[in-house]
Amino acid sequence: MKLFNLPEAAKFSTDKPCRELLFDSPNLRVLTFNFEPGQELPVHSHNADSEVALLILEGEGVFTGGAEEFPAKPGTLQIMPS
Amino acid sequence: MKLFNLPEAAKFSTDKPCRELLFDSPNLRVLTFNFEPGQELPVHSHNADSEVALLILEGEGVFTGGAEEFPAKPGTLQIMPS
Repeated sequence: MKLFNLPEAAKFSTDKPCRELLFDSPNLRVLTFNFEPGQELPVHSHNADSEVALLILEGEGVFTGGAEEFPAKPGTLQIMPS
Repeated sequence: MKLFNLPEAAKFSTDKPCRELLFDSPNLRVLTFNFEPGQELPVHSHNADSEVALLILEGEGVFTGGAEEFPAKPGTLQIMPS
């Protein structure tokens, strides 16, 4: 059993969003992304064999893709199809 | 793409922890558990083909199993082996 304290483990970088791989197995991959104010990830696609679930823990932002925007705030869960 | 607002969707019950299946596919199943103060889930095992990841969003509690206890608070992530 693995236990993480995400707020304590959070790392930030002034250069770009800080991406960290916490767990990786054939069935489950867990990553964290930490953003300084104003940082963003460009619109991108995932090359995954399964759905990608994204959960906002702290802060506020915007999901964007094409013409649509969706608010991202604590407890927002986005599930992208495989 | 599916978008959930977990705090807004949270349901509670005075009878027992409120379990809700948000998403289910061959590769990903997402459930929420909402606890009223004092409610608990008994020690149990999972019959899953993959790891089970559990993330605390709000509130405080304790993970227990056997002789050990671990604090559960916002941002605590527990990953149980398959």
